[in-house]
Amino acid sequence: MKLRPLGDRVVIKRVEAEETTKGGIILTASAKEKPQMAEVIAAGPGGVIDGHEVKMELKVGDKVLFSKYSGNEIKFEGEEFIILSQREILAVVEK
Amino acid sequence: MKLRPLGDRVVIKRVEAEETTKGGIILTASAKEKPQMAEVIAAGPGGVIDGHEVKMELKVGDKVLFSKYSGNEIKFEGEEFIILSQREILAVVEK
Amino acid sequence: MKLRPLGDRVVIKRVEAEETTKGGIILTASAKEKPQMAEVIAAGPGGVIDGHEVKMELKVGDKVLFSKYSGNEIKFEGEEFIILSQREILAVVEK
Amino acid sequence: MKLRPLGDRVVIKRVEAEETTKGGIILTASAKEKPQMAEVIAAGPGGVIDGHEVKMELKVGDKVLFSKYSGNEIKFEGEEFIILSQREILAVVEK
Amino acid sequence: MKLRPLGDRVVIKRVEAEETTKGGIILTASAKEKPQMAEVIAAGPGGVIDGHEVKMELKVGDKVLFSKYSGNEIKFEGEEFIILSQREILAVVEK
Amino acid sequence: MKLRPLGDRVVIKRVEAEETTKGGIILTASAKEKPQMAEVIAAGPGGVIDGHEVKMELKVGDKVLFSKYSGNEIKFEGEEFIILSQREILAVVEK
Amino acid sequence: MKLRPLGDRVVIKRVEAEETTKGGIILTASAKEKPQMAEVIAAGPGGVIDGHEVKMELKVGDKVLFSKYSGNEIKFEGEEFIILSQREILAVVEK
Repeated sequence: MKLRPLGDRVVIKRVEAEETTKGGIILTASAKEKPQMAEVIAAGPGGVIDGHEVKMELKVGDKVLFSKYSGNEIKFEGEEFIILSQREILAVVEK
Repeated sequence: MKLRPLGDRVVIKRVEAEETTKGGIILTASAKEKPQMAEVIAAGPGGVIDGHEVKMELKVGDKVLFSKYSGNEIKFEGEEFIILSQREILAVVEK
Repeated sequence: MKLRPLGDRVVIKRVEAEETTKGGIILTASAKEKPQMAEVIAAGPGGVIDGHEVKMELKVGDKVLFSKYSGNEIKFEGEEFIILSQREILAVVEK
Repeated sequence: MKLRPLGDRVVIKRVEAEETTKGGIILTASAKEKPQMAEVIAAGPGGVIDGHEVKMELKVGDKVLFSKYSGNEIKFEGEEFIILSQREILAVVEK
Repeated sequence: MKLRPLGDRVVIKRVEAEETTKGGIILTASAKEKPQMAEVIAAGPGGVIDGHEVKMELKVGDKVLFSKYSGNEIKFEGEEFIILSQREILAVVEK
Repeated sequence: MKLRPLGDRVVIKRVEAEETTKGGIILTASAKEKPQMAEVIAAGPGGVIDGHEVKMELKVGDKVLFSKYSGNEIKFEGEEFIILSQREILAVVEK
Repeated sequence: MKLRPLGDRVVIKRVEAEETTKGGIILTASAKEKPQMAEVIAAGPGGVIDGHEVKMELKVGDKVLFSKYSGNEIKFEGEEFIILSQREILAVVEK
């Protein structure tokens, strides 16, 4: 089974960013807040949303930052996902 | 008797997802939260909603995910349904 | 005297749904919540509402479901009615 | 002196509805809630309100129902009036 | 110095309405609430406000009623004024 | 360094109004509330704001009145300024 | 890795303003509030946002002032950034 988001929605999954403090210490998961970085798992087709044409700029595999106050947390096949509108994605993380 | 939703609304009914933990244990209903997966029982015709043309993308039988904070809970002929706008459906679950 | 609702409003009156539990027991009024099913008593003409053309899809005699949080409760000639916008009607109950 | 409401506003004055209970007892004012029935005392000219053309459908002398939560209570020449938008009038009471 | 309001705003100043109770007793200021009647002291030019063309219908010297919850209270040259949008003026008092 | 506001924003700085009570007593700063009169220090270029064309009507040096509840207080080079939209300026004070 | 903001968003990073009091005393960081001045680290492409064309006026390296109540705080590669819409930038600081 897979998820097909509607309209301008995307399905994302939190990813652990490798994070080193300025002093060079690598933080373990327990020492950090819940990550706000995620990977796009599925993206809707866009189209007319509330009367406005929305073009999708995100694609599967993109690493993104999102606001910790946005989106719907969903459990699906034993894993946690977040579904939100593309508008709620703040930035893409590029290499 | 049956329900005919107006405009961009859909009538959905919660379904129990078969859910297995990562360790392979099958969760019983009592060990889980109220499911956010549902089946579309009836879909409105779409049309002009608040001045914007809305095309229906959902059809009867679709399995969908919805936000636990959206929709109106309705009891009808002894069963529980939720009526919400298509816009409040987050994603379709496909096989 | 009768009520003529303006714009996209409808006047509805709660109706008791005959309701049987799965086990076949007929519930009396006292064992139930306030019903959310109602009958349309009068419907406005529609027209331009907040700048958007609204076409009326409800007619007198329709059985409808509505959200328990919407509408204005009105007492008129000793009876209780609810007046709300057609947009707040969730679904029509058909035979 | 008289009141000339602007735009889509109307000036209304509460009226006591003659009200008889189902058992035939006539309720006195003290046994009732504040009435939600009113008479239109003056009506604005309509026109463009917030960018939308509004046509006035109410005229002086109309008996109307209004929501108890809407409108501005005004004292004028020793009498109490309510000023609200035509949109906040729920229905006209016709004979 | 004088005040020139911008856009659709008007500057008004409360006026004491001569008020007689039904029994013929003239109320003094101390026995009354703050008056909601005011005189227009200055009116803006109107024009495009939030994308909508607004035509001014009020002129200096008009007596008006306004909602006690609207407007900004301003002290200017030792006197108290209220500045609000024409939209917040409920009605004009005519002789 | 200087401030260049974006869009329809203006940078203003509170000014003490010379204020005399009706009885002729000149109030000192400590006897008064924070002044709501300000001088325009910089004005944005206007343009399309939220899809609406906004024309700037304020210019540097204008004395203005503003609502005490609007704007962002900013400290810049040791001085206090307020940055707000032209729409939040209530009136211009003219000589 | 770098951040690419979407739509009309910008990524900014707080900067310490050199600040001297009127009496000539240089304030240290501990004596000051969190600075509201920031440098633009990355700017989105603009485009159609909620149905309105938005042109970007900010570019990388711009010093800006922003409201302390706006934006999303993000931790990225051990540093703190704020991501907000260009509309939430109050002014550019020019030399």
